[in-house]
Amino acid sequence: MNIKLNCDMGESFGIWKMGNDEEIMPFIDMANLACGFHASDSVTMNRSVTLAKKHNVTIGAHPSYQDLVGFGRRSILCSLEEIKSIILYQLGALSAFCKAQGTAVSYVKPHGALYNDMMRDENIFKAVLNAISSFDKNIKLMILSGAKNEAYEHISKLYSINLIYEVFADRNYNDDGSLVSRMNENAVIHDELEVVNRIKNLKDKGFLYSLSGQKLFLKTDSVCVHGDNEKALEFIKLLRKAIY
Amino acid sequence: MNIKLNCDMGESFGIWKMGNDEEIMPFIDMANLACGFHASDSVTMNRSVTLAKKHNVTIGAHPSYQDLVGFGRRSILCSLEEIKSIILYQLGALSAFCKAQGTAVSYVKPHGALYNDMMRDENIFKAVLNAISSFDKNIKLMILSGAKNEAYEHISKLYSINLIYEVFADRNYNDDGSLVSRMNENAVIHDELEVVNRIKNLKDKGFLYSLSGQKLFLKTDSVCVHGDNEKALEFIKLLRKAIY
Amino acid sequence: MNIKLNCDMGESFGIWKMGNDEEIMPFIDMANLACGFHASDSVTMNRSVTLAKKHNVTIGAHPSYQDLVGFGRRSILCSLEEIKSIILYQLGALSAFCKAQGTAVSYVKPHGALYNDMMRDENIFKAVLNAISSFDKNIKLMILSGAKNEAYEHISKLYSINLIYEVFADRNYNDDGSLVSRMNENAVIHDELEVVNRIKNLKDKGFLYSLSGQKLFLKTDSVCVHGDNEKALEFIKLLRKAIY
Amino acid sequence: MNIKLNCDMGESFGIWKMGNDEEIMPFIDMANLACGFHASDSVTMNRSVTLAKKHNVTIGAHPSYQDLVGFGRRSILCSLEEIKSIILYQLGALSAFCKAQGTAVSYVKPHGALYNDMMRDENIFKAVLNAISSFDKNIKLMILSGAKNEAYEHISKLYSINLIYEVFADRNYNDDGSLVSRMNENAVIHDELEVVNRIKNLKDKGFLYSLSGQKLFLKTDSVCVHGDNEKALEFIKLLRKAIY
Repeated sequence: MNIKLNCDMGESFGIWKMGNDEEIMPFIDMANLACGFHASDSVTMNRSVTLAKKHNVTIGAHPSYQDLVGFGRRSILCSLEEIKSIILYQLGALSAFCKAQGTAVSYVKPHGALYNDMMRDENIFKAVLNAISSFDKNIKLMILSGAKNEAYEHISKLYSINLIYEVFADRNYNDDGSLVSRMNENAVIHDELEVVNRIKNLKDKGFLYSLSGQKLFLKTDSVCVHGDNEKALEFIKLLRKAIY
Repeated sequence: MNIKLNCDMGESFGIWKMGNDEEIMPFIDMANLACGFHASDSVTMNRSVTLAKKHNVTIGAHPSYQDLVGFGRRSILCSLEEIKSIILYQLGALSAFCKAQGTAVSYVKPHGALYNDMMRDENIFKAVLNAISSFDKNIKLMILSGAKNEAYEHISKLYSINLIYEVFADRNYNDDGSLVSRMNENAVIHDELEVVNRIKNLKDKGFLYSLSGQKLFLKTDSVCVHGDNEKALEFIKLLRKAIY
Repeated sequence: MNIKLNCDMGESFGIWKMGNDEEIMPFIDMANLACGFHASDSVTMNRSVTLAKKHNVTIGAHPSYQDLVGFGRRSILCSLEEIKSIILYQLGALSAFCKAQGTAVSYVKPHGALYNDMMRDENIFKAVLNAISSFDKNIKLMILSGAKNEAYEHISKLYSINLIYEVFADRNYNDDGSLVSRMNENAVIHDELEVVNRIKNLKDKGFLYSLSGQKLFLKTDSVCVHGDNEKALEFIKLLRKAIY
Repeated sequence: MNIKLNCDMGESFGIWKMGNDEEIMPFIDMANLACGFHASDSVTMNRSVTLAKKHNVTIGAHPSYQDLVGFGRRSILCSLEEIKSIILYQLGALSAFCKAQGTAVSYVKPHGALYNDMMRDENIFKAVLNAISSFDKNIKLMILSGAKNEAYEHISKLYSINLIYEVFADRNYNDDGSLVSRMNENAVIHDELEVVNRIKNLKDKGFLYSLSGQKLFLKTDSVCVHGDNEKALEFIKLLRKAIY
């Protein structure tokens, strides 16, 4: 299995800095770039595209509900027309910076609450697909790999959109491929080496162990890493070394 | 001379309505669509593109300084990188709605304070050209026709961008082609019939009379009309009848 | 029963006008003034206070979730600390304009989704009370009169805040005092004269008829009227005449 | 001379952190708290008031032009009614958090471009005074001490507002008390010890040396320090030790 590392990037806003994009960009494969609704601004987006291109990192749009003060982490009840429209707006804005620099948006990964809502609500999932499909059918959609991949696959085919399956490196999974709830104390794996070994195993053998110890064959195109803390860089380097 | 009517459209915001776009759209040739920085929002932009397309109206992007509460009428001192970036952001966002509906942005007309600043400051003019040129050299830039057309033409050629020359229907001009200052009581022509006749004369004979009575041959691709008051529709119909 | 008319006012934003505040203000008793989060801006708030004071209209703060583009009609999942803080922020801002003009905020009526959430979620209700109580215990809170008035009363006493009970003039009620759901085709009463008679009866005899025809004795301090449509002024005049 | 240290605080926004308020607050006397227009948000303001109160730090409002993405550093051409209104809005909002915690706003220090515009334009200075004076005449206004203190003093008396004179610790002054322009390579003093000695001398003897070496007796109530870099805390401690 060929596993790519994706990371949320370009999440500074105005004078406020977030993450260490310059340090981390060289070590990831796919950059989910904020589009101004939960983070980023016009100048930051332009610079983020430049940085991604410099390091040959694939560019994804990271659209969100319109909520800077809440960082897009709060669900906002939107009509499906609104969902489609905010996706198109942000996807178009990022595409302009890409086009101006001779590159393009390759995929969309909704951010925060919009990502969760898309995974939970079929109509929102369809509205996201509808937006992307009407804009450019070559652009893929990143979703959370899990128990119901076939159902998502079935729907996305109707919109002629290819999916990118994402696995969370540091989360435990149930036997059916769903995430262990954060209510459960074992939801998150804190040992970095264990996380690295899980992903390495996933790459080499195609499965990881569920919380109960079952082999779980989970479709995995990309693993999500975080860049906004001090140890992030070291961990990403370690993970990269393990899977390349 | 073939003169087109252009009008600022799509300037509602959220629940707040502005103008009578549905009534006016059938009678104009070019719609300057707001892009969310001084007016409009994702849903309004989507619908405005639909409306323009329905009536075969050419779509222009109407980008602005980021200032909803001031409606983009207040200059904000931006770096040239910021100017370029906010143009690209808004141009890309509108382009996405166009592309999704099988059409495209044909020109850019900066809004309000940004339009004035572009006409006044060569560096801002270049930053606007730079943005458009890096995105799509087929997109034109609308500027105010006047005394210094050749200078603007010279610069725009360096960026491979074609200009659209705009004349204000209801404003008096000096002999050199500049606008009579609003300080002057004769700046604005209030008689609608006189305005219509001026534009008709401009179309048929290629000139209008300056305030001092001189024949003024003013390059005119488009005349700007306003759609946000009650009498607007009747005036636009009158003007349209006169020049077609 | 002494019934006051309350109306949402000061909901223009920047250049966008909403409602006919100047015409309607003389005929209402209580103005719920927007505070900049769902509508209004600093200048509009200042002028709205001036207008209310001129007509001796009691001033209420009309705070909202922070959502201009959605006009505060969409729930945003906030922590209780956020609820308390956004209420204090908006209440303080409006109070400043009042204080500067020698008047004061008399009550708070949360707007849109925040109003609904407050009525539905006891913790949000308490957070609203907490905000008001910490600022000024003389400021009242307007809530929807209904089946559970005693429960709300009990809680508000803990915060030393007095309640203002509001009835919706044009809505039908169930026998227990709850609103007939908008799912039901009889939710809204469209006949203006019937609405006026209902409110007149409420004032004179203390009850209105529930949808099933039962006498419903509903605590009523204020009736909510709308000012944002053409017929609003005439209806308000009619209603005012009936209850004074 | 009794010199207080003032510092811009509470300039985080949503998830984005700025400065080390918790570390620095114990060592300053006056906290200029952002009010949501250039930085901060409702929750941050509430917490910042709590932190200032805990350390017995005097609270000042730090209002700004409405420009989060530009951090209030860009002039926005406002009417005087707008200036007055945005000051009142922000001053009121911060006052609410103070009142709710049993404290109060003691002074106003406009932020960034608004501060510069106020010092440069007498009408803006008067609009700021007008706002404060209408709200509470006990609230002082912090301005830049310099060559024209008497002129500012004269005007502020008309509004019954007392001034707080601020000196920039690390800037060189001309003989007349004006700041050496940033165009000049000697505008900023980079040697921390020299800065500390200058302020100590100012406190003990009432003067500092102008760039040309003249004794400059500059009215000084407060010295502005910065908290947003790594060395800030050490410098502030050093300065504090020198002047207490």
